[in-house]
Amino acid sequence: MAVDNGDFVRVNFTGKIKDTDDVFDTTYEEVAQEVGIFEENKTYKPIPIVVGGNHLLPAIEEAIIGLEEGDKKVIEVDAENGFGQRDSSLIQLVPMKEFKKQGMTPYPGMKIQSEGATGKILTVNGGRVKVDFNHELAGRDLVYDVEVTEIIEDETEKIKSMIELHYSNPNVDIDKTEIDIEDGVANIKLDDMSKFDQQSYMDITFARFRIAKDIWDNIDEINKVNFVDSFEKNEDSDDEEEAEE
Amino acid sequence: MAVDNGDFVRVNFTGKIKDTDDVFDTTYEEVAQEVGIFEENKTYKPIPIVVGGNHLLPAIEEAIIGLEEGDKKVIEVDAENGFGQRDSSLIQLVPMKEFKKQGMTPYPGMKIQSEGATGKILTVNGGRVKVDFNHELAGRDLVYDVEVTEIIEDETEKIKSMIELHYSNPNVDIDKTEIDIEDGVANIKLDDMSKFDQQSYMDITFARFRIAKDIWDNIDEINKVNFVDSFEKNEDSDDEEEAEE
Repeated sequence: MAVDNGDFVRVNFTGKIKDTDDVFDTTYEEVAQEVGIFEENKTYKPIPIVVGGNHLLPAIEEAIIGLEEGDKKVIEVDAENGFGQRDSSLIQLVPMKEFKKQGMTPYPGMKIQSEGATGKILTVNGGRVKVDFNHELAGRDLVYDVEVTEIIEDETEKIKSMIELHYSNPNVDIDKTEIDIEDGVANIKLDDMSKFDQQSYMDITFARFRIAKDIWDNIDEINKVNFVDSFEKNEDSDDEEEAEE
Repeated sequence: MAVDNGDFVRVNFTGKIKDTDDVFDTTYEEVAQEVGIFEENKTYKPIPIVVGGNHLLPAIEEAIIGLEEGDKKVIEVDAENGFGQRDSSLIQLVPMKEFKKQGMTPYPGMKIQSEGATGKILTVNGGRVKVDFNHELAGRDLVYDVEVTEIIEDETEKIKSMIELHYSNPNVDIDKTEIDIEDGVANIKLDDMSKFDQQSYMDITFARFRIAKDIWDNIDEINKVNFVDSFEKNEDSDDEEEAEE
């Protein structure tokens, strides 16, 4: 069976800058180690996506249509279809005193955060600091080596894959998720450990909304997703108490 | 019908110190205003409790058994059955330097927090500060004026009352709670606004556990409580889009 639009699949990939061959992202641990971008807290394994779901660059999701499970493909993505062209208006001169106010000493190459955007300092000249707020990959043509490791067919597994994608919690065992689908409703009961997440309830709601949307947009017979937290009276311990009496 | 153990009721009360007639707590806004203990963020209305559920002092919960809806009663609670006797080992001498370390200047009457306990400074003598960690009402005989405003009979209303008691969120409309009880399971769907609570998921889990426990301990036919967050595809907006084409 070949990959089609709307399919739930798992893919491995390595993204490189075309000109330099520099790897900027990968799902392979050995590649990350080799090129020196390995991160301790990241899990290296195929990531689940919906084809056409905007989980990866649209150009990549289109390019894997027609591949079979196990197929690999080299996908060239030009800057336009990657992270956009460079925009010179995003290079700004910032007075040095703005940095001093915050106790910062700017130097070329330093990364800074400003109103949610990441900037990279290009030059420091007396009272003026030149900061580039373009995406680091803007203007770059890219090459992705992509491998389709799995086409997910089972609906329960499709749902689990979206939980994996949108709600990552190292304490939660995805295999302990209980899912039942009935009359257009998917009822999801996560591993009990998820109840003790220290994130805000609102942040978890946003993750749940993304999970639910990917499910109802891509699984025809589901139009409602319930997340259920169960609290059950422990009859066993009552029995034990009685037995001890 | 008279109040019995295990009943869900709503009560108003005013608590006073017997010797001095000082009011230290009340559910009546006009009383709070009158004696100068009114708090802006507190809601003044009858509080829901389970009789024998340890939501108020056990002595009060016992004393209202047998009252009818609308009945009032003056309940005397001696120190032993109130907040306990004063314990002289809870009066401690703390070196002044401990306060200095934290940039504090202690004075008699000042309240301090230490390892979760609240202490009140009694005296400051040179290098030594005497702090009383007894409960402010320890050793005091108390008088409560209590009024049973409602005996809750409906099971759905009983469940709502425990949500009110354990999960207070000013943005959540308790009347928007959907509750259905079937085969020993209570399914609770709160007002959608509850999804955007900024408290941690774990803190909400603890509140839910208290709600669930009070339900299964006091409503015979329920042994499981599900909290359900629903996310539903909005078919209407799809239709609108089509109509515009």
